[in-house]
Amino acid sequence: MSETIPLASYLFTRLRQLGIGSVHGVPGDFNLELLDYIPLASLLWVGSVNELNAGYAADGYARIKGLGALVTTFGVGELSAINAIAGAYAERSPVVHIVGTPSRDTQEKRVRVHHTFNDGNFTRFAEMYERVTVAQTCLDDANCAAEEVDRVLRECLVKSRPVYIGVPVDLVGVQISRARLEISIKIPETVETPATTEAISQVLERIYAAKNPVILFDGECRALGITKDVHSLIESTEWPTWTTSYGRGLIDESLPNFQGVYKGVFDDEATQDFFSKADLVLVFGPHFSTTNSYASSAVPKTDARIIFTDTSIEIGSTILRDVPARHVASLLRERLDVSKLTPYKTSPLEGLTWHSEPTHTFVKVDKNEAITHAKLWTLISGSNFIRPGDIVMGETGTSGYGVREMKTPANVRIFTPVTWLSIGYMLPAAQGAALAQRELHSQANGAANSSESRTILFIGDGSLQMTVQEISSIIRHNLNVIIIVLNNDGYTIERAIHGLKEGYNDVARWKYLDAPTFFGGAEDTYTATARTWGELERVLGVERLLDGTGLRMVELFLDKEDVPAGPLQMLMDRERERTMKG
Amino acid sequence: MSETIPLASYLFTRLRQLGIGSVHGVPGDFNLELLDYIPLASLLWVGSVNELNAGYAADGYARIKGLGALVTTFGVGELSAINAIAGAYAERSPVVHIVGTPSRDTQEKRVRVHHTFNDGNFTRFAEMYERVTVAQTCLDDANCAAEEVDRVLRECLVKSRPVYIGVPVDLVGVQISRARLEISIKIPETVETPATTEAISQVLERIYAAKNPVILFDGECRALGITKDVHSLIESTEWPTWTTSYGRGLIDESLPNFQGVYKGVFDDEATQDFFSKADLVLVFGPHFSTTNSYASSAVPKTDARIIFTDTSIEIGSTILRDVPARHVASLLRERLDVSKLTPYKTSPLEGLTWHSEPTHTFVKVDKNEAITHAKLWTLISGSNFIRPGDIVMGETGTSGYGVREMKTPANVRIFTPVTWLSIGYMLPAAQGAALAQRELHSQANGAANSSESRTILFIGDGSLQMTVQEISSIIRHNLNVIIIVLNNDGYTIERAIHGLKEGYNDVARWKYLDAPTFFGGAEDTYTATARTWGELERVLGVERLLDGTGLRMVELFLDKEDVPAGPLQMLMDRERERTMKG
Repeated sequence: MSETIPLASYLFTRLRQLGIGSVHGVPGDFNLELLDYIPLASLLWVGSVNELNAGYAADGYARIKGLGALVTTFGVGELSAINAIAGAYAERSPVVHIVGTPSRDTQEKRVRVHHTFNDGNFTRFAEMYERVTVAQTCLDDANCAAEEVDRVLRECLVKSRPVYIGVPVDLVGVQISRARLEISIKIPETVETPATTEAISQVLERIYAAKNPVILFDGECRALGITKDVHSLIESTEWPTWTTSYGRGLIDESLPNFQGVYKGVFDDEATQDFFSKADLVLVFGPHFSTTNSYASSAVPKTDARIIFTDTSIEIGSTILRDVPARHVASLLRERLDVSKLTPYKTSPLEGLTWHSEPTHTFVKVDKNEAITHAKLWTLISGSNFIRPGDIVMGETGTSGYGVREMKTPANVRIFTPVTWLSIGYMLPAAQGAALAQRELHSQANGAANSSESRTILFIGDGSLQMTVQEISSIIRHNLNVIIIVLNNDGYTIERAIHGLKEGYNDVARWKYLDAPTFFGGAEDTYTATARTWGELERVLGVERLLDGTGLRMVELFLDKEDVPAGPLQMLMDRERERTMKG
Repeated sequence: MSETIPLASYLFTRLRQLGIGSVHGVPGDFNLELLDYIPLASLLWVGSVNELNAGYAADGYARIKGLGALVTTFGVGELSAINAIAGAYAERSPVVHIVGTPSRDTQEKRVRVHHTFNDGNFTRFAEMYERVTVAQTCLDDANCAAEEVDRVLRECLVKSRPVYIGVPVDLVGVQISRARLEISIKIPETVETPATTEAISQVLERIYAAKNPVILFDGECRALGITKDVHSLIESTEWPTWTTSYGRGLIDESLPNFQGVYKGVFDDEATQDFFSKADLVLVFGPHFSTTNSYASSAVPKTDARIIFTDTSIEIGSTILRDVPARHVASLLRERLDVSKLTPYKTSPLEGLTWHSEPTHTFVKVDKNEAITHAKLWTLISGSNFIRPGDIVMGETGTSGYGVREMKTPANVRIFTPVTWLSIGYMLPAAQGAALAQRELHSQANGAANSSESRTILFIGDGSLQMTVQEISSIIRHNLNVIIIVLNNDGYTIERAIHGLKEGYNDVARWKYLDAPTFFGGAEDTYTATARTWGELERVLGVERLLDGTGLRMVELFLDKEDVPAGPLQMLMDRERERTMKG
């Protein structure tokens, strides 16, 4: 084998080694040469419809496969994607953003080329990217390029956040040494320090002393790579365990000690009471944004909590630094002596709602009644529509708040509003997630496209409009995506916040179910509408919807002021009152 | 009248005073209160489908009306629009970007709200905007807010570039003094300095001495506010005058001394010869990006040129600073003594192509022949399809390169690729331009929607896909937009650059003419297709297309490797050769 390799091949081989199978992005004249090397590294080029969608999709892909990538062109392309990369930063999705840039000659001579401000400045956009990525490199030296690529990719894995790699068009094909490809890119190993030993010992002491302990599992566990270890602790302690919206679907939610999402002041009194009486709350992978923590009300009180983060353990108000969760979680799992745990005197689960909560079934509802959020999510839960292995996504808005309350079987990945909350995100993210899901299925079963891999997206009409052309990519790559459009005639979540009756919360009325044919899909793509429980029940029993492949679309009609219980209902009530007064 | 006014009313009243009639944007929870004040200032809220489109549309609007505005929400909204604002910066479109931000309380307490990185940092996005705007303010003090708003808006006018105004949600309704509203926001007056007098005198000396002078009119004349003065110089000198693509449509192109676009090495020999023999080239509002200057080949040689910019006059290689074109152009116009000009010995226009070039007519072409770029643009020119008063737009790609070669009647505004070249721009820009056009017509004639105001967009399939949902806004606001889709089955401009036969230059095949109904338009919206000259001739004679109102769409089919003559043809030939060799 040759000792050298074109720089672009080095880069894409690295991505392949790290588990990437597909690259999102849009061609542009500064990245075309780069794209030549994508199939050569056995990667699929998605050919996205625009860069924002490409970024969102790469993020969705990364959350399923552990790493995603997109390629855009200098200036126009990278800036169109920057909101998606910011979202990946906020919610810790590891996305590699590769930007094809003008040749070094063009840059050094400050040529007034297109996609610039016509002022010879070529660093402006990369500088903007410094705000939304954890590592950056603008390659300019073939001799250091491999090390640079490796450094940046490692940071992407370590921080589980996006990184930026600029590749001048004249460097793409330059031969570099392939030697480093033999060394795999890894998160640095952690050795146990005295500080770690001491910290673990303090934590175990608190664990053994606890009389009423609970566990709060949050979504950064995925980014920290500690989901398995924490899951093991949840199983072995049998302690009552809550999750957050962000943590939904990462652990087995059918465990008897799993209690659902802790909703703080929005939870029932018994749960709040139980949670507040805990003398120890182990918090793993916390992400206490107001959205994820029910306006901070679900953040455990300082005295009782021990928080495990990237680099520290917080015991009450004391921070022990340089004891990374990635290391600590596995040590805890190893060293925990279950026999030393205080047994609960009474079952801690009585009176709590997750396992006892009544679920609605279609048998009990009036078939002619209009669909409302109050029963929609429990009816879907109860209907076995969601299956193990599914990816279920609820876009920011009423859909997302609904999905995050829904019970799902084990082994279902769930995407709901966490912190970035950029409407328009979920449709492209569904495309990326479905593609990643198919790759995983294909690796596991050797099957190219199994109807068993399903991505189910619940999305409002307002959000769908933002990035609707992603339906085209779903069709083009024949991905198994079921889109459930909640048509409530505008931005209902905004109506709840401010402007209940205001025109600015309206959107244009589209023929949503014409989307499959407009975007090039087969004329017989499955579509359906439902306005009543009876219609919904019928649709949810259709085999083509449940077991088909490719795109399927259902449009549900809901009242424009109808919202799920919880924070949105509280806001809606307040806004109704304000509007009536005004 | 009350002495105070809510801050938001102050801001929107200022926009109204400066000629804005409509505001683009998307609602989000940090800007909803702001939006309440838009109708109160008698402004129309467009309600865009997404923020990138909103930004592009505000840019298109600004280029017609002299100022545009958009409102987005913090983080997610502003970042989605940032590529559009960057484009407005590059091509000097004065857009006011207003961002609704979290309350001062939330910011000061570093609350971990949504639309942040969950880290208490609220300045990150505004800092990114410093790279793409000429003035910024993040309002935080009601007492200084009016001055701040005025300062930033004045900079927008002075530089004809975008500005950024962040408004915390708790400041929106705060009462402030309305006193400053009586003082209009103006570009500072310029007094004549000895430097100016001297500069003008040097310029006039060169003008009077010139034997073979020409004028090059470029597109920044609009930004500098000197179009009228320069037009007057073009008329009074009768000197042969060329424009650039960027300058197209700003001056009367039917003047006998107007010679079309100077294309440098892509021009015919007679023109290149004539131009290179000039002993004086007066260059107004230069914008010498490679795209606008035919790879710099249309930049006049240093010895002969005098260049008038924002702040300086460049005479050969000498730069006279602090003599702004805005001032100088009017002084020149005033002081020029036409009797001192050297008369041309022979008519300088002979042998040059603009007025003598043969145009194709439908009479002479084979009706069954497939449509090709070679004749398309002259046939359209010759067909009287374009009328005085139209706005004609050619998206980056083969469309834009075609449009910029097309002859048009006087009083036609033309948008073609200049420097930013962000595909997807032109459709939303067409929406914004058409809205601005309607407002101008309505002001002039009192008519709400005249079929005489027409915006005609030529756009390729690849570009259309990027921002296709803007068709919804065109329909929603019943704007008179004729969209001519050049369906050439992918990114033909990219095929010409690199990857002639590569899959990454393909796009999905949509049913483009289903767009009007999909996006909520009337079932009987005029649509048509044409594959041959005969079909095109028929379509271009249809009254509903020519004199209708609202959206109309025509799909032309072209070969995927067909490009207009000029730079794209050169690239295509080169890429064909490379591909054949490879």
